[in-house]
Amino acid sequence: MTSPERKNPARTDCHDPLFGQHSGLQAPVVQPHKQSLLKRLNRIEGQVRGVAQMVQDDRYCVDVLTQVAAIQSALDAVALQLLEDHTRGCVADALRADSGSKGNGDKVITELMTVVKRFAR
Amino acid sequence: MTSPERKNPARTDCHDPLFGQHSGLQAPVVQPHKQSLLKRLNRIEGQVRGVAQMVQDDRYCVDVLTQVAAIQSALDAVALQLLEDHTRGCVADALRADSGSKGNGDKVITELMTVVKRFAR
Amino acid sequence: MTSPERKNPARTDCHDPLFGQHSGLQAPVVQPHKQSLLKRLNRIEGQVRGVAQMVQDDRYCVDVLTQVAAIQSALDAVALQLLEDHTRGCVADALRADSGSKGNGDKVITELMTVVKRFAR
Amino acid sequence: MTSPERKNPARTDCHDPLFGQHSGLQAPVVQPHKQSLLKRLNRIEGQVRGVAQMVQDDRYCVDVLTQVAAIQSALDAVALQLLEDHTRGCVADALRADSGSKGNGDKVITELMTVVKRFAR
Repeated sequence: MTSPERKNPARTDCHDPLFGQHSGLQAPVVQPHKQSLLKRLNRIEGQVRGVAQMVQDDRYCVDVLTQVAAIQSALDAVALQLLEDHTRGCVADALRADSGSKGNGDKVITELMTVVKRFAR
Repeated sequence: MTSPERKNPARTDCHDPLFGQHSGLQAPVVQPHKQSLLKRLNRIEGQVRGVAQMVQDDRYCVDVLTQVAAIQSALDAVALQLLEDHTRGCVADALRADSGSKGNGDKVITELMTVVKRFAR
Repeated sequence: MTSPERKNPARTDCHDPLFGQHSGLQAPVVQPHKQSLLKRLNRIEGQVRGVAQMVQDDRYCVDVLTQVAAIQSALDAVALQLLEDHTRGCVADALRADSGSKGNGDKVITELMTVVKRFAR
Repeated sequence: MTSPERKNPARTDCHDPLFGQHSGLQAPVVQPHKQSLLKRLNRIEGQVRGVAQMVQDDRYCVDVLTQVAAIQSALDAVALQLLEDHTRGCVADALRADSGSKGNGDKVITELMTVVKRFAR
């Protein structure tokens, strides 16, 4: 889990990778695909519940595994959407505001690469 | 989704890859790790709900992505448990009952490889 | 690396997971897809050399990455072929020879699951 | 393979995602980790040759699979190095040169996401 809570910063503050440590001032912004993400996550939650029911009902293991694979694909799609929005938003803004100085841009890219590695094969 | 419903067959019927199509006779058996799987899936369901709440609250995208990665790892572990139990149970039983004839054993392995490919990188 | 060398055992000895430690006696057997595997590996070797040449020639990084992804796919296919042949051969033979006793079958499955985990996402 | 050949552009031209189509003018630049990448790729080429030899010698399939997994890991590391250098170089330069206009930056990010998806799980 993440503590302390870090609000998704207003776009104009997004280039500050340390915003989480001195936040409070920033107006949170809505994810560009917020409603579609919530809808997808809601569906995934139902799929997980469905798999639990399949296990409860002693359904055939291969059928359960097929459903788990479907959830994995749905989560992959959510992750890629979040990653793309983050790159187009926070990362790009930080770099555009950064011309010449090499200030926050480098930190934002380091953070991005850490996330990419987590999802890489 | 899977239709028609296929009960996890009794171990002794497990080597029949077609049991799902003429079931009814088979007594379903409990997954060897049923309670632990249900507990894990319950926790994963809560994690998915937590990620939805993070998106709802406009939390920082990198923090959301970290939580999605945690769910993926938890699902990977569930899938590997199911796969191992299936191999030790249904697949091994089918092959042990199959000595010489090469009957259902081959079908069960074909089905196993399909599942493995789905989770392979 | 693997030491000491373990010959791919003759099918009839394949169910002994310890054969590597007291080998010498076993006649090695040809992989069922030996020629096709060698051909694929030869092509992959050339692809790796091609990527090195691209780096040497300062080719655009995205084009280099695309070629690396192609090699990964080719290696995935080799791994799945090896895994399927191993399961249909050594694993199935061990289990078929094992009816009732639960001797080497369990060890062979433990080894199989270790391999599967290595290639799972 | 990629045709026509696209030189890795000089850093200052790197933000032009179309540079490959009208190149010739650009001085190619050395990858920041060129020597280390070449060394790694050279080692990977040897590993692939080693696996072919193992197959040729009828070595035990599980040992062959272990070596294939080692090559996959080595290629993953090469890909992540290339990806990070590309992001810190071409992508960041394009965005830094792009402040306000939203010109090439968007195209460079689209290309980056395509690459990331190829390596994502």
